[in-house]
Amino acid sequence: MSIALQSETTTDLRRYMLEIGRKARAAAAELAYATSQQKNQGLHQIAAVIDQRRDSILQQNQKDLQAAGANQLSDAMLERLELSSNRIDAMIEGLHQVAELEDPVGQIGELSERPSGIKLGKMRVPLGVIGIIYESRPNVTVDAAALCLKSGNASILRGGKEALHSNQAIFDCIQTGLDQAGLDQQSVQVINTVDRAAVGLMLSMPDTIDVIIPRGGKSLIKRVIQESMIPVIKHLDGNCHVFIDDHADLDKAIAIAINSKTRRYGVCNAMETLLVAQAIAPGVLPSIIDRLLELGVELRGCETSVSYRPEQIKLATEDDWYTEFLAPILAIKIVPDLDAAIWHINHYGSQHTDVIVSEDAQSSDSFLRRVDSSSVMVNAATGFADGFEYGLGAEIGISTDKLHVRGPVGLKGLTSQKYVVFGDGQTRD
Amino acid sequence: MSIALQSETTTDLRRYMLEIGRKARAAAAELAYATSQQKNQGLHQIAAVIDQRRDSILQQNQKDLQAAGANQLSDAMLERLELSSNRIDAMIEGLHQVAELEDPVGQIGELSERPSGIKLGKMRVPLGVIGIIYESRPNVTVDAAALCLKSGNASILRGGKEALHSNQAIFDCIQTGLDQAGLDQQSVQVINTVDRAAVGLMLSMPDTIDVIIPRGGKSLIKRVIQESMIPVIKHLDGNCHVFIDDHADLDKAIAIAINSKTRRYGVCNAMETLLVAQAIAPGVLPSIIDRLLELGVELRGCETSVSYRPEQIKLATEDDWYTEFLAPILAIKIVPDLDAAIWHINHYGSQHTDVIVSEDAQSSDSFLRRVDSSSVMVNAATGFADGFEYGLGAEIGISTDKLHVRGPVGLKGLTSQKYVVFGDGQTRD
Repeated sequence: MSIALQSETTTDLRRYMLEIGRKARAAAAELAYATSQQKNQGLHQIAAVIDQRRDSILQQNQKDLQAAGANQLSDAMLERLELSSNRIDAMIEGLHQVAELEDPVGQIGELSERPSGIKLGKMRVPLGVIGIIYESRPNVTVDAAALCLKSGNASILRGGKEALHSNQAIFDCIQTGLDQAGLDQQSVQVINTVDRAAVGLMLSMPDTIDVIIPRGGKSLIKRVIQESMIPVIKHLDGNCHVFIDDHADLDKAIAIAINSKTRRYGVCNAMETLLVAQAIAPGVLPSIIDRLLELGVELRGCETSVSYRPEQIKLATEDDWYTEFLAPILAIKIVPDLDAAIWHINHYGSQHTDVIVSEDAQSSDSFLRRVDSSSVMVNAATGFADGFEYGLGAEIGISTDKLHVRGPVGLKGLTSQKYVVFGDGQTRD
Repeated sequence: MSIALQSETTTDLRRYMLEIGRKARAAAAELAYATSQQKNQGLHQIAAVIDQRRDSILQQNQKDLQAAGANQLSDAMLERLELSSNRIDAMIEGLHQVAELEDPVGQIGELSERPSGIKLGKMRVPLGVIGIIYESRPNVTVDAAALCLKSGNASILRGGKEALHSNQAIFDCIQTGLDQAGLDQQSVQVINTVDRAAVGLMLSMPDTIDVIIPRGGKSLIKRVIQESMIPVIKHLDGNCHVFIDDHADLDKAIAIAINSKTRRYGVCNAMETLLVAQAIAPGVLPSIIDRLLELGVELRGCETSVSYRPEQIKLATEDDWYTEFLAPILAIKIVPDLDAAIWHINHYGSQHTDVIVSEDAQSSDSFLRRVDSSSVMVNAATGFADGFEYGLGAEIGISTDKLHVRGPVGLKGLTSQKYVVFGDGQTRD
């Protein structure tokens, strides 16, 4: 186990990265044609090895935690970094779950016969090599490797420097598992250097890596967008809205608003701004406000909504409408009508997940069509924007991009389609 | 009609580009929700205006041709630049055809009900603003604008400087047609400056343009890849192969090889290298060689294939295997078997279109799965890799990328999908 090539020169680092790329590319060419059975066996084997080496993984994780303590990492970061036997169980369970998922690779769809007599279809194929750059959670190492493996892609994983020992211990399990299943060990690569320049090099290897998926805070995402010469599937902000239309059912409105804000605060699919149609506000907003205040949520409202509880609601600033609080804070605005709500969401939102509560089909339909977000919902809480809830089985992230894949990204999002043509000697005029 | 702001300062150019971007973005927000009927009416109106202003378009085209003659443009470029009444007819016909195509926008598919009780689907939506950078063919102005319009996208078109007058004349027709149909004139923007810096600015506007589609020679494509901060749907090389397997039907093999090379030489879906399995080469290759020589095709072969007609076949260089000749030149290689053919294609090819001629299902299946190209065919000529042949109705290009869209790109390739959720008050645990 060789770790932390900190003293290497840039030339050495470049050579190291190119070598990782070369191995991943070679492994990808074979992994693309592995059978589902082979890939599933690989996943089960990795799970078995992790189970066997549970103690050793926890020991390595302790090293990271000690270093993190010495470096005065925040409690939130420590919490993300820490592994426990329960978290290892979850990793193992995740591997078995991915093995259970349907394998999209090789599926042929959209078959048709053309006037020329050729039969046309589209076959699902892996993307090739997927680069994943993430922060302190070591469980991402397993989750990401598993989804890439099942979708027939080789992966190059670059975890946070805080988790170096944990990631390496997990990576060793992955390699052993792959090997035991007769798959190429090089199908998964972990970059085991803390040199930040490795990320820059990774982003400049478009011939080696087909797509980059960053998972982490905004500063990471922004760096990746700025530097990458490789297409990026990214998840930026989750500034999600619930709009209570004047045709809303009051009970549903209250339940959806409370649940969308308070189920979990630190997640991208939590509501950050509540919009309420003027006509219905007096009938529904006071109950919601009181319940949220009870639950300890700080409220920042427009002038009218402040007037409901002037002592307890702050006046929202322009910035608040743009903000993903990721905290027990909610912005509230009363809007004249549906159009104003749609305008607000498209203007201030982050195209992630937005909800209308309404019993009126025309309003709902208009909202669904005109709100330009990756998930648009009628009468459901924002929290449903999730790979498991959508039946993807697992997600590698939620894309706020429009190209290639939008919303929760599962196995299909890690594949492409190629045209397949079946002829009988046809030539073109 | 204001043309050629050549003397503008960079600041002016930047202001001009931002203004174009702002108008396109605003128009896109509305165009996304235009009905199919409105969009079709726009297309028919544009066709009608082009028909009315036929003489004026040809006059403006003459100006471009004269300038081009003075600047000693190549015959090939002049040929691409020149408009005729026939070419205008084709433009008009193209518009009516796009109007006939099914509108993908708003279609909801993949509906399912989840265990939580929510109903989930995916709705087709436009991408937003599409930037198209192309070279001397003025008809691209109409074709590209039409496909973007029908798919609900605003477009920013940057044509070649050689075609400035022609493009402006066509653009005027587009704006008039849009206006007559009650659509926002700003839905289509043409950049009417010859300043090359405009392209650089365009590529640096990720907040305004959602995707860039370059259409032109390799130097253009390479510049775009290098500079773009916006996702690119690109078509790089078309180094296409036909492999004659040892289980090939001889008549089909000969017909497909000849047709794939000689139907048209300058197109991306022409065959550039012929691969022949060793065992079948003596029975099939001499007939193909003789026919190609008769047709004036220059042949560059491996040592064994040269030996068939040593006087008439040159020895191929390593470079020839990588080359998209776009000319009556063909590279020929005899390979030991199917695996060697697949290796050659994946190694030297450009992932565009590759064909196996074989009567053996196992060989064909292996070829289909293992050749990593946007179109992989069995017993059909390479020329079928085409938007019309694939039933897309029209194509804006052929993507050699894997992300988002691969192969011929039609209306669907210019759309994305968002998740739509229909609930009845569901909240998440």
